[in-house]
Amino acid sequence: MTRFRLIVEYDGRPFMGWQRQAHGPSVQQAIEEAIRSITQEEAVLHAAGRTDTGVHALAMTTHVDLASAMTPYRLAAGINARLRPLPVAILSAERAAEDFHARFSCIGRRYLYRIVNRRAPLALDAGRAWRVPVPLDAEAMHSAAQLLVGQHDFTTFRAAECQAHSPVKTLDVLRVRRAGEEIHVEAKARSFLHHQMRSIVGTLKLVGEGKWRPRDVAAALEARDRTRCGPVVPPEGLYLVRVDYEA
Amino acid sequence: MTRFRLIVEYDGRPFMGWQRQAHGPSVQQAIEEAIRSITQEEAVLHAAGRTDTGVHALAMTTHVDLASAMTPYRLAAGINARLRPLPVAILSAERAAEDFHARFSCIGRRYLYRIVNRRAPLALDAGRAWRVPVPLDAEAMHSAAQLLVGQHDFTTFRAAECQAHSPVKTLDVLRVRRAGEEIHVEAKARSFLHHQMRSIVGTLKLVGEGKWRPRDVAAALEARDRTRCGPVVPPEGLYLVRVDYEA
Repeated sequence: MTRFRLIVEYDGRPFMGWQRQAHGPSVQQAIEEAIRSITQEEAVLHAAGRTDTGVHALAMTTHVDLASAMTPYRLAAGINARLRPLPVAILSAERAAEDFHARFSCIGRRYLYRIVNRRAPLALDAGRAWRVPVPLDAEAMHSAAQLLVGQHDFTTFRAAECQAHSPVKTLDVLRVRRAGEEIHVEAKARSFLHHQMRSIVGTLKLVGEGKWRPRDVAAALEARDRTRCGPVVPPEGLYLVRVDYEA
Repeated sequence: MTRFRLIVEYDGRPFMGWQRQAHGPSVQQAIEEAIRSITQEEAVLHAAGRTDTGVHALAMTTHVDLASAMTPYRLAAGINARLRPLPVAILSAERAAEDFHARFSCIGRRYLYRIVNRRAPLALDAGRAWRVPVPLDAEAMHSAAQLLVGQHDFTTFRAAECQAHSPVKTLDVLRVRRAGEEIHVEAKARSFLHHQMRSIVGTLKLVGEGKWRPRDVAAALEARDRTRCGPVVPPEGLYLVRVDYEA
């Protein structure tokens, strides 16, 4: 068997998330079916993480073990040809070491949340960003965000159905900055809780519109109480940007 | 009558271009029908220019004369509500002077052409950029582009069906730069010939892949011969970025 590492870009709109579902299309299933059509192997694709319905990825890292002898280049080209016209692309493929695991070897995950802060509906970015019509103060959001950086019990910012063993996570980076009419929220951590990013952005949005002060965010964190979280923001603004491994 | 100035963003994919067509949807028709449904007026929308099938606009300027008394804000909100789910949005609306004309008052138009220079298919930018799999040298493209800046007879870079009186145009800016895996070609001129931008980008691409040298571009320009133009590039990478008027 050869282990292949595949980096995948996808538009989350037509999928019920990354992971295979009994009732609906998933990115995992689309790629596994393409691999099966090339190799006649029932291979399982392992990913660095799951993404929810409608969430995008610029570079999701995955691995798959195949008995078929083929070059990484031909594997990627073959999958891409079969994925068409779905908005999924294998960006790169290479042979990986036997002990490389897309999920368990991962040491960092980076997410971006894109807000378009304007009154007009989105024509070019519909389904690819979240529009907020009320003016947001990105600097206030950034200040409040710094209170969440570091190791904390993130129970407040965790979905009820989250399956992680512990609500304690370490946020290495949480940055908010304005770029024209857009506001970008960037986060980096070894791992995230379910809905953690969208829960944090929803809470920072309350600060951005002046309904909350930064100290309200600190109090919500300390409360370790899901009901103290701001409204979870929609998936269409969220991008898995990059997954890090030991060099 | 009140003259309104409307700035419009659209994704060109579902349309046969800006201008009303007998057989197919257009951006102009979509907005005119929305206005008619609000005001019961058969108003004609005048635009700074036309865009072809599949070409996008970040900010097309238009004007329309209406007898109905309404605020610009309510006009824009009403049009946007009726355009849904089409990827067209009125970004802003304001009352304009009687002598303002979206087309004839215009003193400058800016276009962007987006190339994604990579082997993998486009998942997130499908239909919104042109993918070129062979490596392109953006600096060589920029050098060659400078030979086209200024006033020239652009017959080589003009579609056979172009209706302009003269092939002589002045390119104020033509800039090529790499941004990660993207190459952006930016152009500014008072006005453009039909297919001029896509003809120029197609010619610069020959330089980028090393098939042409910059002096071949100069020779093609001087030849004033349509057959000397590089292959016209597809519409999906082209954006009307901005339209300028006297302050």
